Amino acid sequence: MAAGSSFGTLFRLSTFGESHGVAIGGVIDGVPSNIEIDIDLVQQELDKRKPGQSNLVTQRKESDSVVFLSGIFEGKTTGSPIGFMIQNENQKSKDYSHIKDVYRPSHADYVYTQKYGNRDYRGGGRSSARETASRVVAGSIAKQVLKQFQIEFITFVDQVGNVALNKEELKCLDLSLIESNPVRCPDQDKAKLMEQLILKIKKEGDTIGGTIRCIINNIPVGLGEPVFERLNAQLAKAMFSINAVKGFEIGSGFGSVTMKGSEHNDLFNVDGSTKSNNSGGIQGGISNGMPIEMRVAFKPVATVIQKQDALNGDGEIVEMMGKGRHDPCVVPRAVPIVEAMAAMVILDNYLMYKAYT
Amino acid sequence: MAAGSSFGTLFRLSTFGESHGVAIGGVIDGVPSNIEIDIDLVQQELDKRKPGQSNLVTQRKESDSVVFLSGIFEGKTTGSPIGFMIQNENQKSKDYSHIKDVYRPSHADYVYTQKYGNRDYRGGGRSSARETASRVVAGSIAKQVLKQFQIEFITFVDQVGNVALNKEELKCLDLSLIESNPVRCPDQDKAKLMEQLILKIKKEGDTIGGTIRCIINNIPVGLGEPVFERLNAQLAKAMFSINAVKGFEIGSGFGSVTMKGSEHNDLFNVDGSTKSNNSGGIQGGISNGMPIEMRVAFKPVATVIQKQDALNGDGEIVEMMGKGRHDPCVVPRAVPIVEAMAAMVILDNYLMYKAYT
Amino acid sequence: MAAGSSFGTLFRLSTFGESHGVAIGGVIDGVPSNIEIDIDLVQQELDKRKPGQSNLVTQRKESDSVVFLSGIFEGKTTGSPIGFMIQNENQKSKDYSHIKDVYRPSHADYVYTQKYGNRDYRGGGRSSARETASRVVAGSIAKQVLKQFQIEFITFVDQVGNVALNKEELKCLDLSLIESNPVRCPDQDKAKLMEQLILKIKKEGDTIGGTIRCIINNIPVGLGEPVFERLNAQLAKAMFSINAVKGFEIGSGFGSVTMKGSEHNDLFNVDGSTKSNNSGGIQGGISNGMPIEMRVAFKPVATVIQKQDALNGDGEIVEMMGKGRHDPCVVPRAVPIVEAMAAMVILDNYLMYKAYT
Amino acid sequence: MAAGSSFGTLFRLSTFGESHGVAIGGVIDGVPSNIEIDIDLVQQELDKRKPGQSNLVTQRKESDSVVFLSGIFEGKTTGSPIGFMIQNENQKSKDYSHIKDVYRPSHADYVYTQKYGNRDYRGGGRSSARETASRVVAGSIAKQVLKQFQIEFITFVDQVGNVALNKEELKCLDLSLIESNPVRCPDQDKAKLMEQLILKIKKEGDTIGGTIRCIINNIPVGLGEPVFERLNAQLAKAMFSINAVKGFEIGSGFGSVTMKGSEHNDLFNVDGSTKSNNSGGIQGGISNGMPIEMRVAFKPVATVIQKQDALNGDGEIVEMMGKGRHDPCVVPRAVPIVEAMAAMVILDNYLMYKAYT
Repeated sequence: MAAGSSFGTLFRLSTFGESHGVAIGGVIDGVPSNIEIDIDLVQQELDKRKPGQSNLVTQRKESDSVVFLSGIFEGKTTGSPIGFMIQNENQKSKDYSHIKDVYRPSHADYVYTQKYGNRDYRGGGRSSARETASRVVAGSIAKQVLKQFQIEFITFVDQVGNVALNKEELKCLDLSLIESNPVRCPDQDKAKLMEQLILKIKKEGDTIGGTIRCIINNIPVGLGEPVFERLNAQLAKAMFSINAVKGFEIGSGFGSVTMKGSEHNDLFNVDGSTKSNNSGGIQGGISNGMPIEMRVAFKPVATVIQKQDALNGDGEIVEMMGKGRHDPCVVPRAVPIVEAMAAMVILDNYLMYKAYT
Repeated sequence: MAAGSSFGTLFRLSTFGESHGVAIGGVIDGVPSNIEIDIDLVQQELDKRKPGQSNLVTQRKESDSVVFLSGIFEGKTTGSPIGFMIQNENQKSKDYSHIKDVYRPSHADYVYTQKYGNRDYRGGGRSSARETASRVVAGSIAKQVLKQFQIEFITFVDQVGNVALNKEELKCLDLSLIESNPVRCPDQDKAKLMEQLILKIKKEGDTIGGTIRCIINNIPVGLGEPVFERLNAQLAKAMFSINAVKGFEIGSGFGSVTMKGSEHNDLFNVDGSTKSNNSGGIQGGISNGMPIEMRVAFKPVATVIQKQDALNGDGEIVEMMGKGRHDPCVVPRAVPIVEAMAAMVILDNYLMYKAYT
Repeated sequence: MAAGSSFGTLFRLSTFGESHGVAIGGVIDGVPSNIEIDIDLVQQELDKRKPGQSNLVTQRKESDSVVFLSGIFEGKTTGSPIGFMIQNENQKSKDYSHIKDVYRPSHADYVYTQKYGNRDYRGGGRSSARETASRVVAGSIAKQVLKQFQIEFITFVDQVGNVALNKEELKCLDLSLIESNPVRCPDQDKAKLMEQLILKIKKEGDTIGGTIRCIINNIPVGLGEPVFERLNAQLAKAMFSINAVKGFEIGSGFGSVTMKGSEHNDLFNVDGSTKSNNSGGIQGGISNGMPIEMRVAFKPVATVIQKQDALNGDGEIVEMMGKGRHDPCVVPRAVPIVEAMAAMVILDNYLMYKAYT
Repeated sequence: MAAGSSFGTLFRLSTFGESHGVAIGGVIDGVPSNIEIDIDLVQQELDKRKPGQSNLVTQRKESDSVVFLSGIFEGKTTGSPIGFMIQNENQKSKDYSHIKDVYRPSHADYVYTQKYGNRDYRGGGRSSARETASRVVAGSIAKQVLKQFQIEFITFVDQVGNVALNKEELKCLDLSLIESNPVRCPDQDKAKLMEQLILKIKKEGDTIGGTIRCIINNIPVGLGEPVFERLNAQLAKAMFSINAVKGFEIGSGFGSVTMKGSEHNDLFNVDGSTKSNNSGGIQGGISNGMPIEMRVAFKPVATVIQKQDALNGDGEIVEMMGKGRHDPCVVPRAVPIVEAMAAMVILDNYLMYKAYT
């Protein structure tokens, strides 16, 4: 896929919109017909990504109300593309006047300006994570389709800075707790610690990284295509298309490096399931029926409310002070985005799978 | 891209071939014309991936001689697709008779059989890493094109099991040493330790994981497309399309999770370069002119020469004993594959970049 | 491209919207940056396609006002995708109540219902030619980009029913006359005859077919990719994606069948141009620098204001009477659509061409 | 699809090879598994395209023996890509020495040289119709898959120069006669006249055009995707990707232009079939269950054995005399190519259709 704003082959999302333009939105093509769509559910997913939802996230105010323009008729998908739009309400461009001529460190300002020969200084323009709201819409549609096949997604924060769920905690998670705290971590004690860490970092005008874990249950055996369209490869691309992602691993991940084959191998049960799941549900690029398990690493957000050196358009180093309303830690709001990207990949591959069965 | 055996958009490789069929090979399309091709160089790259090259790798004998069938005329690319073929010489199918009816743990046997309803038991068929030889051919062609623009690739092993290059060692690498040892590690002392570890593991009939680091120099600012075709997303997919890959990170990677924004940000120099490179040469999905740095984690090979439980076609657990000639550690031979995939991604994006400049 | 609502590779349009939904619109991706966009010009193109523009076309009232949502900043393209929307104002769904349970002959009702298992009876839903308004928007953007390279499009009606421009008339066209008559034919006498024919047919409650000719000037040598992405193949697909198209020919077209090679061959001038242009500007699938010339055949519109047998959902033949406000002849309004599709193909290939030069 | 040597999305062919290189061939990806493949049948299709098969075609000698390299195991498709190769045996490059520095009129020499900056003068290189042999292989595989669903193809010559089957003859064809004469026309009298015409033209050292008709039976309702991936649009592109094609029409085609809607409309039978088939089996871009009917126009071959002006590399007009062994009329050999392209399109869409049902 050449120009970069489309994702997927059979189920495909094309997005448009800048952080501070009129609206963002997209076209979702390849949606199976006659699926009941609960629009409230879509809005609930958007609300998880929305700014201003808690004191852990940016206080920018956007209601992020999605409007559907096509493809849904009398409550069901028609099979035609779903067009949708989210108005940008709070276009406080003045917040950004201080960076109009400045390339912020570790932001995309510099590369976009070099690549396109212009500067949309309004809050990052197209490079802003605001675009990901469109993905949450498409992901929610994908999940509502997949629910018909019992495929379910569980996504949560498992690390913020040095506060991480350990192996024991990961084994006995109470997933109903994910939405019970603003961090979206299913362990209340660790969630508390993460929350405290984020608030401390926020007070410093600084930011901190984190990781998100996503588990997909009830996947049939056989999703994913060999060689270049391995399911893990598609998931890796999907996750790395999210702003601020620096790492991705599946199953045993980087931990597999120090393991021996004899301990890493997942031995079979008689029904084809396996006793362990180091494979993370994918073998040879194809789902093996076990839960798909992946982990995504997010860097600390680049905008800090501290003095920093920046580069201006005249090639001078200037001191700048971050302003505006930014996130001290991106992972709580990134949970629905990770889940949305995973859902789009799975539905695309599910349709592909059906083409051959 | 739906069916899975093609990679790339403008520069595109389509491969064919099973481990123990007549031949493997492929079609490379979108090659710029009038590029001098050094066929010996292609063969040298293949030799780095070849079985039997040292006592650290499988002793299977394959000369892996590439034959070009089209697209090169009088020593130069014509602009037409390059067809090529590598004969499978050593098709010792009898080596595999013991697994004909058995699904090996953590191999693709089970999922392929479920997906396709048949079994090509000869050494893994299409799921075998033998297919990657075709990628090395295409990658070598890509590198020869990119050399014209001074773009260079440095790829080496930086960890085997617990033996890893530390930060200090990574800072003062002598890259000329990479090919001086069979592990392909540019630090002689660590290389020795890695070698010893692999031989010890081999003796146990076991296998071990490792990581590969790839650095790309002299990349212009502006490669990669926003949103879904970020350069890092494309690289992630490329790497996860390689057999046995479990993790991928770019720049600071998983290490960024515990960093603060104020320390993670890469401050600019006046020429637009940056003082640090936590971004790994990619900002907002687009190359920023700094070296691109990535790291790929490989699991321990699943075939161990030990007794293991496996599943047979009748749904019974049976004891099997790995046989054949397999790799105790995959990373030394995976170095040219990682580099090939990186080169294909970069050339594809370089052509895309040229379309708009 | 699998799901069907996207067109193009480097320059790509994705559309959404049904005839009687909230809105139609789309996303245009891969637009070169820093191109000045004259929005009035886009609207003028839309007005040529608009219903109600003359007594030769449907009297349905739609202002067809395009709203741009992204990708244009301070009057210029930013390089980010252009999102746009056209509200559906006149959603007279009651006009269609008489066909709610009826499959009209030679309409898409039947196949859509069979394919999707549902019925959007409101004026054809997604199969309505209303969707083509989005193409006119994208085509106008493409033309504004191509104007920078002097590439120009001339498109007109050259046949309605049996009234056709003859070879002599085609040689001495006054192209400034195209917009001087409601038929969009650059020969005033023939335009008059065409107009009379259409009005006569309209009075009968019937419809009639026609053809459109499109000429593209100042194309450089080298656009189009060999074998499957021939420029003529891409144009053929583009034209056949328009509603009601039944035939396409390039250069000498079907007329070449009765010619000998010795008379059909286009002999060279010393500058590489040719004395004749039977090739229609494309040789071996690649532009040869001569004007690209093509011709598109449109069938008579299926909706006639006469009694006709139709099929209902219970499998019974029922008599129906066409109602609503339909076109007696589609070609006058199809002129901007043909031109838009041609422009999108040319820009896509121009970008591809630049990738390799 | 950017680079031009691949065709199809789910079922996809990628080809390589020049007229006088080592070999031509390709990779067929997305083949359903467990389909029995009759290799003799593939070879028989190739033999219909082969040079030297009768006195109506070029006398160049090529056995065109296909060798399969992968994807077929124990007589059945495995689901892995099918690699194949056809050696170029008769590489009489000396035949072409007279055109080494000359651009032949209405050949691709000039545009390829301009596009790629080089010249593969050996018989047209990549622009030669020799490449189409690879399509016949893939088309034959596609037909063997589609035969399982009773989908059948009937393809024949219906016009050579001015000798055309008339409406009456088209109604009472004896399709078993197609292969009974070297022209591949199912009407013996007309076949005789066509044969005589071709031989007369050949004697003159000249060439003549023709048309091929292709009918596809037993297509289910619902193949093809709305808007840009209409089945007719895909077929149009497929046909225009064949060398020498100048026109394409579906159903009533150009003839529809002079018809009224009231006579053109296909009235329904109670089972959803239609009394007439002006739609050519496709309505709104989607198959309606009636036979798909299309017609493809081929120009007279450009190589004539007569003196002609040509252009040389120094920009001079020079007289040249066609030599070599060329076809006086391309349609008899093009029959299997047209059928192959149609089969690939149908299978691709059939798989797509299955993805949603």
